[in-house]
Amino acid sequence: MIKVIYIIRRKPGMSAEDFHRYWREVHGPIAARIPGMRRYVQSHAVAVDMVGSSDYDGAAEAWFDDVDAVRQALASPEYAAAREDEARFIDLGRTMLILTEEVPVIA
Amino acid sequence: MIKVIYIIRRKPGMSAEDFHRYWREVHGPIAARIPGMRRYVQSHAVAVDMVGSSDYDGAAEAWFDDVDAVRQALASPEYAAAREDEARFIDLGRTMLILTEEVPVIA
Repeated sequence: MIKVIYIIRRKPGMSAEDFHRYWREVHGPIAARIPGMRRYVQSHAVAVDMVGSSDYDGAAEAWFDDVDAVRQALASPEYAAAREDEARFIDLGRTMLILTEEVPVIA
Repeated sequence: MIKVIYIIRRKPGMSAEDFHRYWREVHGPIAARIPGMRRYVQSHAVAVDMVGSSDYDGAAEAWFDDVDAVRQALASPEYAAAREDEARFIDLGRTMLILTEEVPVIA
């Protein structure tokens, strides 16, 4: 399995509250239509003052069978629609994408 | 539950192979001793040429009961030992930490 991690920051000028609500309520159902996703979890940043915390607002994680399934997903119209929606709440110039394989240490 | 996401890059000059092996085989068991972790997963970057992929090498994710449990973990000697070990393979100037709450969309 391949897990895609997509680290995001909200659009400049958008409140954290609006960002989290839009991501959960509007974007979640749109992104959930992307084909090939076995699992899809949004991790919403919590406002905590802790040393070393970054100013990212969250990470979306999506599990696919393999890299080919990721490529097919990225070529789908459902992905194009989700991508278009991202522009409404994500600072697209500052996202980070990592394709990974999970190694569970404490399950 | 709070999920800590810690995005990391390998030390300059270290090979990807050495990084992934050290993280999995040496650091994993050391970090697993940090108290309060309910779950701990390493997500190792796979070498794929894909548009938008960042040059991060992976993300560690650790689940705790709440923010207090995270603070207690960070104050523990086990965390200090893990942190000392990180300097052996992680570029500590370029890590990113995000404290999050999960919202499962496709479970």
